[in-house]
Amino acid sequence: MLSTERQSKMAHEGWQEICRPLDPFLKQVTGGLREQVHCFDPAIGTFVQYALAGQGKQLRPVLVALGGGAIGPVGADHVKAAVIIEMVHLATLVHDDVIDHAEMRRGRPTVTANWGAEISVLVGDCLFAQALELAAQFPTPKVCRAVSAATRTVCTGEVMQTLRRGNFNVTREEYLRVVRMKTAELFALACGLGAELAGAAPAAAASLAEYGVELGTAYQIYDDCLDIFGAEPVEGKSLGTDMALGKATLPVLVALERLPAAHARRLRGLLTQWDPSLAAEMRELLSQAGAMEETLLVARSHLARACGAVEVLPPCSESRGLLGLARCLEDQIAAIAAA
Amino acid sequence: MLSTERQSKMAHEGWQEICRPLDPFLKQVTGGLREQVHCFDPAIGTFVQYALAGQGKQLRPVLVALGGGAIGPVGADHVKAAVIIEMVHLATLVHDDVIDHAEMRRGRPTVTANWGAEISVLVGDCLFAQALELAAQFPTPKVCRAVSAATRTVCTGEVMQTLRRGNFNVTREEYLRVVRMKTAELFALACGLGAELAGAAPAAAASLAEYGVELGTAYQIYDDCLDIFGAEPVEGKSLGTDMALGKATLPVLVALERLPAAHARRLRGLLTQWDPSLAAEMRELLSQAGAMEETLLVARSHLARACGAVEVLPPCSESRGLLGLARCLEDQIAAIAAA
Repeated sequence: MLSTERQSKMAHEGWQEICRPLDPFLKQVTGGLREQVHCFDPAIGTFVQYALAGQGKQLRPVLVALGGGAIGPVGADHVKAAVIIEMVHLATLVHDDVIDHAEMRRGRPTVTANWGAEISVLVGDCLFAQALELAAQFPTPKVCRAVSAATRTVCTGEVMQTLRRGNFNVTREEYLRVVRMKTAELFALACGLGAELAGAAPAAAASLAEYGVELGTAYQIYDDCLDIFGAEPVEGKSLGTDMALGKATLPVLVALERLPAAHARRLRGLLTQWDPSLAAEMRELLSQAGAMEETLLVARSHLARACGAVEVLPPCSESRGLLGLARCLEDQIAAIAAA
Repeated sequence: MLSTERQSKMAHEGWQEICRPLDPFLKQVTGGLREQVHCFDPAIGTFVQYALAGQGKQLRPVLVALGGGAIGPVGADHVKAAVIIEMVHLATLVHDDVIDHAEMRRGRPTVTANWGAEISVLVGDCLFAQALELAAQFPTPKVCRAVSAATRTVCTGEVMQTLRRGNFNVTREEYLRVVRMKTAELFALACGLGAELAGAAPAAAASLAEYGVELGTAYQIYDDCLDIFGAEPVEGKSLGTDMALGKATLPVLVALERLPAAHARRLRGLLTQWDPSLAAEMRELLSQAGAMEETLLVARSHLARACGAVEVLPPCSESRGLLGLARCLEDQIAAIAAA
């Protein structure tokens, strides 16, 4: 059996190996995103530039490239689609950070920490609008339709999550529905749009979108786990944020299902009066419940469905890349579960 | 010379007369807007329904109908365009009220007063996204492009205004630039898109958009005046809000230009430590400066340009309606100035 550290390292190397051939594409996306600043009024350039520089692992651009490449040639339209989706994603992060009063993200102060909630709300709006304007540069309104629908779904999922703050009487189904909307939707858009722009038949595009939904769901589960068990300096943000904000995450929901009544009550008590000093006791309760093992099983079921959706496509390096991504994510979650 | 009350009453009657032939159109827009609620997830239906029911005088739909009618037949596409523009406008109001911490608008509690800033930010995002999705239903991406560009401009104008809060060292040009962006842009979109959808040649569409810019600028000046001299129960919101938020309005900028240094200093003092009890003294200083007369002159110059842009078009009942609108607005501002 592998050590968890080794498992996590391998997952990281796997991720790098998948991304290496995409490097020129990802560089174009980063460049394209940076250039977008010139489309905004100079009066707001500072804010926009800062927000656009907050890219993370470029997961969504990777999915545009792989989803497209699994079908046919990947070109300038894919770069543009990736810039659009990344800009929508960054806009949602700007607004999320306002809503969560978040100070740090990806190791640097948030837009709202730097310039306040008022500016952040409006700058987020400008980013959304610019993403849609870029989408409207495509010759048909299909891209606009897909991007605006996905944006609405993401924001609706966020509303639902906000309404449920502090409510841990949530079923797994309800949890998964919100995850599907707030996180998996943009993954599905990235894969599906990538495929469509490469000329995919509707069935193949639907398969790739389904891959995106399932991978995105597993990714959110991974993110849930990181918030509880991650290493703060690596993540560049405070851990336990979900607990502090009263967000129900999968490990917690699983533990509440499985723990004996008294322990479940205790866990509920910790969550409703959250303080970072309670983290050790919460982890202990999660461990008693076998919550991470079950969480890993749930993630694996989604990743299996993701792989199933890709396996119907003709094999090629990109479809292998998509399968590899699922494997990396599984390894990462397994490493956390085993730690 | 007319009494101000009579002048205001005539302007109101003039407005009603212009709108009467548009009544079936405006009813369709209201109905279309209400129906939009079914496009959203039921989980957020309550918020969306409430936000969509916050329509005001339907100025922008009126402009879509008149701008279109001045060129050719007005049909279902115009209703849809009016619904889109009204939805963008309502979305910006939801976010504005978050930013201004506004409790009341149009005689009822704001979305943020009812459900908090977090929900309001996200519901505003959902409205923006849905407006763009509706725009993407048009066969070409032209409408999407126009709507997203206008949205970005409006929000950029709002950022600029927010950055200048409490700064009364603003030139008229700077003030007018922000007004052009935050208010006049959607008026221009309404007229210009109305015209384009009726098959306008580029020059005619540009003339109508120019009308929108100039009318929208005068409308913002009117709104500035109302905040200082309006009647609270009529407006359905607190007066002096602009002062409380440190927003530079035209009458105030004019007064600061014209008052002798000591009085200007006193006015600046009132503005920076604003309290509603200071309203009477501020009005007195504005009156000493002849600020309302000068403000009326500025508004008139914009309205004259608005009329000039329409007068190049063949005369018809709709182009007369556009000229009539400008006259109504002039009468309203004159009534305030003379009060």
